[in-house]
Amino acid sequence: MSGAARQEGTGARERLLEAAAFLITAGETIDISLAEIAAQAGLNAALVKYYFGSKNGLLMALLHRDAERALHEMQTLLAMAVPAAEKMRLHLRGMMRAYRRSPYLNRLLHAMLTSPDPAATAEIHDGFVQPVMDCQRAILDEGARSAEFKVVDPMLFYLSAIGACDQFMHSERVYRLTVGVAPDADFSARYMEFVENMVLASLRPAPHEQETHR
Amino acid sequence: MSGAARQEGTGARERLLEAAAFLITAGETIDISLAEIAAQAGLNAALVKYYFGSKNGLLMALLHRDAERALHEMQTLLAMAVPAAEKMRLHLRGMMRAYRRSPYLNRLLHAMLTSPDPAATAEIHDGFVQPVMDCQRAILDEGARSAEFKVVDPMLFYLSAIGACDQFMHSERVYRLTVGVAPDADFSARYMEFVENMVLASLRPAPHEQETHR
Repeated sequence: MSGAARQEGTGARERLLEAAAFLITAGETIDISLAEIAAQAGLNAALVKYYFGSKNGLLMALLHRDAERALHEMQTLLAMAVPAAEKMRLHLRGMMRAYRRSPYLNRLLHAMLTSPDPAATAEIHDGFVQPVMDCQRAILDEGARSAEFKVVDPMLFYLSAIGACDQFMHSERVYRLTVGVAPDADFSARYMEFVENMVLASLRPAPHEQETHR
Repeated sequence: MSGAARQEGTGARERLLEAAAFLITAGETIDISLAEIAAQAGLNAALVKYYFGSKNGLLMALLHRDAERALHEMQTLLAMAVPAAEKMRLHLRGMMRAYRRSPYLNRLLHAMLTSPDPAATAEIHDGFVQPVMDCQRAILDEGARSAEFKVVDPMLFYLSAIGACDQFMHSERVYRLTVGVAPDADFSARYMEFVENMVLASLRPAPHEQETHR
């Protein structure tokens, strides 16, 4: 095994990740075999086991690779000196942009989150769910202190906001099936802005109105 | 085949649907085999082909069976003499209740919507996506006429609102992974209300504020 790995060079790991990303995107399914991944990469299937332990190990590595940039941007965002509403808007946009860069990100996260393997669900929760929840909670706290936001339950907020962002990955398909043509060039931008506005509207204190959230 | 079907009686079709629903719910995956479905139903696998043509035919029949009630309620709702905001709230709640009754509904819809078979994607679009969009568009029009709602793009509204509702099926799992215990009895009710409030807040005209939707 190590002989084969040395022979392929250090690019083999990245080529296997690229191959898996390509196959998941093209087939719109994560049901791809080790043999398919290896064939797409032009490498031996044994290398998947060498680098990643298993197919699930490879998919987890792909998740970490693709979410890393978004998670890093999230940390930078938290430290920025901008109003909480703008921070929340940038956070939501960052998540949807991550989905646009890796259209399979969401499918992969949910598949891993519903895995029968407790180690996998814990890794997804600790690595992806909790950091996003923590980031949102920090922004929600900032906004409540500055009276930009009303006080909301962070868990319910997380689920609702993430849900609206998640749908991003189905939006082009739904548009095409409904309208009969591909969406225009700025459809994604308009969708992102719509979600941002929806979420921010739900956080806005409404002094002149009866509070509807009991 | 028809002999076997007669022997099993008319309950066989329903038993196969029940068996598939049980397996999808228990395994949290739609990757179930004809053999597994038949074994769970205590019936011959050939009956799946007899009644449904294929496994996908069975899954499509399951979707129609489970969404029928929600789609029927939607039509009743449209005819009701209540304000548009209340109609929209009931519509959203109806969708989330359908997800609660059939936790696999969403997974099945998305799997069929991304199927490589154009007939399947068209059937999902025409049978499930378009009726919901039409219902929402009618309520949005009513609300705009009565000045309860601002004017929004119905397609972007559909995607954002559906996304927030869709997340309902992941909410209990995320809660359990984060908090470490199962959510309390009224968690679902609070989540449904949160989503309803978020969506309705986004529709509320804001006369005293700068319009944020360009």
